[in-house]
Amino acid sequence: MLAFKTLRPMLNRVVIKKADALTKTKGGIILSTNKDDKLNFGTVIAVGPGKILEDGKTRACLVKVGDTVLLPEYGGSKVQLGSEDNELFIYRDDDIIGTLHDPTK
Amino acid sequence: MLAFKTLRPMLNRVVIKKADALTKTKGGIILSTNKDDKLNFGTVIAVGPGKILEDGKTRACLVKVGDTVLLPEYGGSKVQLGSEDNELFIYRDDDIIGTLHDPTK
Amino acid sequence: MLAFKTLRPMLNRVVIKKADALTKTKGGIILSTNKDDKLNFGTVIAVGPGKILEDGKTRACLVKVGDTVLLPEYGGSKVQLGSEDNELFIYRDDDIIGTLHDPTK
Amino acid sequence: MLAFKTLRPMLNRVVIKKADALTKTKGGIILSTNKDDKLNFGTVIAVGPGKILEDGKTRACLVKVGDTVLLPEYGGSKVQLGSEDNELFIYRDDDIIGTLHDPTK
Amino acid sequence: MLAFKTLRPMLNRVVIKKADALTKTKGGIILSTNKDDKLNFGTVIAVGPGKILEDGKTRACLVKVGDTVLLPEYGGSKVQLGSEDNELFIYRDDDIIGTLHDPTK
Amino acid sequence: MLAFKTLRPMLNRVVIKKADALTKTKGGIILSTNKDDKLNFGTVIAVGPGKILEDGKTRACLVKVGDTVLLPEYGGSKVQLGSEDNELFIYRDDDIIGTLHDPTK
Amino acid sequence: MLAFKTLRPMLNRVVIKKADALTKTKGGIILSTNKDDKLNFGTVIAVGPGKILEDGKTRACLVKVGDTVLLPEYGGSKVQLGSEDNELFIYRDDDIIGTLHDPTK
Repeated sequence: MLAFKTLRPMLNRVVIKKADALTKTKGGIILSTNKDDKLNFGTVIAVGPGKILEDGKTRACLVKVGDTVLLPEYGGSKVQLGSEDNELFIYRDDDIIGTLHDPTK
Repeated sequence: MLAFKTLRPMLNRVVIKKADALTKTKGGIILSTNKDDKLNFGTVIAVGPGKILEDGKTRACLVKVGDTVLLPEYGGSKVQLGSEDNELFIYRDDDIIGTLHDPTK
Repeated sequence: MLAFKTLRPMLNRVVIKKADALTKTKGGIILSTNKDDKLNFGTVIAVGPGKILEDGKTRACLVKVGDTVLLPEYGGSKVQLGSEDNELFIYRDDDIIGTLHDPTK
Repeated sequence: MLAFKTLRPMLNRVVIKKADALTKTKGGIILSTNKDDKLNFGTVIAVGPGKILEDGKTRACLVKVGDTVLLPEYGGSKVQLGSEDNELFIYRDDDIIGTLHDPTK
Repeated sequence: MLAFKTLRPMLNRVVIKKADALTKTKGGIILSTNKDDKLNFGTVIAVGPGKILEDGKTRACLVKVGDTVLLPEYGGSKVQLGSEDNELFIYRDDDIIGTLHDPTK
Repeated sequence: MLAFKTLRPMLNRVVIKKADALTKTKGGIILSTNKDDKLNFGTVIAVGPGKILEDGKTRACLVKVGDTVLLPEYGGSKVQLGSEDNELFIYRDDDIIGTLHDPTK
Repeated sequence: MLAFKTLRPMLNRVVIKKADALTKTKGGIILSTNKDDKLNFGTVIAVGPGKILEDGKTRACLVKVGDTVLLPEYGGSKVQLGSEDNELFIYRDDDIIGTLHDPTK
């Protein structure tokens, strides 16, 4: 019986768990939920080894596991692993807009 | 409870706070508000570490925090952080047309 | 009489045997079978020698025979070798989303 | 109160003040005003530091302040700075067709 | 009188003689003849000297004369040399999916 | 009063004076005037300093002033300098098909 | 009076005189004249100095004057030099499919 629980992304792909609706309204950040904007955020669950450049070298992934990231309007693919509730998204690291930080730290 | 207030942009992305309508009419510069033009300006709030070139080196971001920049007609994405009033825009630094300076300084 | 049974892929192409329906429901992973998602997984049967970079060097294939891989929504070509039941798919290694691993190992 | 009067273009962008109608008819050059042609000329008001090449080096801007330039049919963006009369255009230096010179000098 | 019989392909082009219908059904391999698949196979008759890379060097052709190759759905051009029966196809070597081998050898 | 008479093209642009109709019928060459062909020829009036390559070096222009050139069907822009009769065309040097030569010289 | 008879192609352009209908039926090669195929052949009349690579070096033309070449379905431009009968075609050398050779030589 197959029982994989871990996805190791290829290249500079990043696995993201999107923030749920509750987090969106309770946190200090209120990200626009306007459909015209379609920006979003989540937590990095896994990262690939990095992007292979034209000369064959690898540059490390631009985000790390645990980062809270602001996501672009387009570019992610949905994937479900382990259970119905565990819906994850795949992005290329260079498509991610940025990381979100608590200024008190 | 999440309380992120700071967005650190990836690569050569730049966070811009657009100038409000009042500033547009009171300042020495009158930027065209003609809908056919669609050019605009704002202040740089945060910058990414820079663009990664094909050989893996990073060139620094072309603008710095505090710069007043002239923005292109297309290319920005709207994002809201912290409060309803804090509407920000994300641009790639090489899409920005230029920086605006007071000639007396 | 021709009796080829082995396909050696060119460059960074990968031969994939997709997971069958039974495996999908019994395993620990429940991959979405929602038609809107169209993501899928399978086992690597054969890999090419790798991708030729612009300077003529070859970078090795990113997956190896036996890997369980998560496949993208688009990009594969179906091919049948040896028998009606042996339906295989060809992907470029850099189009594969990632590899799936049992966390107990 | 903001009172910016100077625009410093980014990269290889060039600020152009287009020649007015009077100049067009009095000069030695009669540029076609036929709508099918749509070519035009103007004076360089400001230039960026230059284009960043793939290896990270900068090549200087191809025109300098004061040059009279022949402009292409497409490629410019209009911007207004300082007053209603001060309508300027932004071009990439490599989109400019050429520079115009007085043969007696 | 012209009587050319040999075609020497340019660059990384490959001349393929497609397998005939009889071979398809008698061999150990049954390639799908389903019109939706459109994959196919054949024998390499001639190969070009190789692909010229961006730095001017040539990388050798990826297949050799006599190889049995699995062909992609798109990308070949039909050409007829010497007689009505001698219908050949031209492919770029990097468009070929892979080579087919007898596992007993 | 402005009185520019000379256009110095940027990069690898070339200024061409097209051959007039009389020249077309009297010369040894009869270029097709069939509308389906749309090929044409002219004389090089001015050339730019050359094309800037990806490493920042300049390769010299491929034609020189005085060359008679065969022009492609597409790619030129019309410009008028000095008088109504002086209608010129701008091409990139690598879009020019070739140069025409008198075999007796 | 202009009396050019020679066309020297630019870069890696090649001047081709297409084989006439008689040659097509008498030779040892019968190239398909099926409109669906649209492949064709001819003789190389002139070649350019070669293609300029990204680093500024020139690689020599891939065919030489006198070669019989198999032409692609698309990519050539017709041009007429010297007389109505002298209809020639221009191709880039890397668009040519291959060269045809007499196996007895």
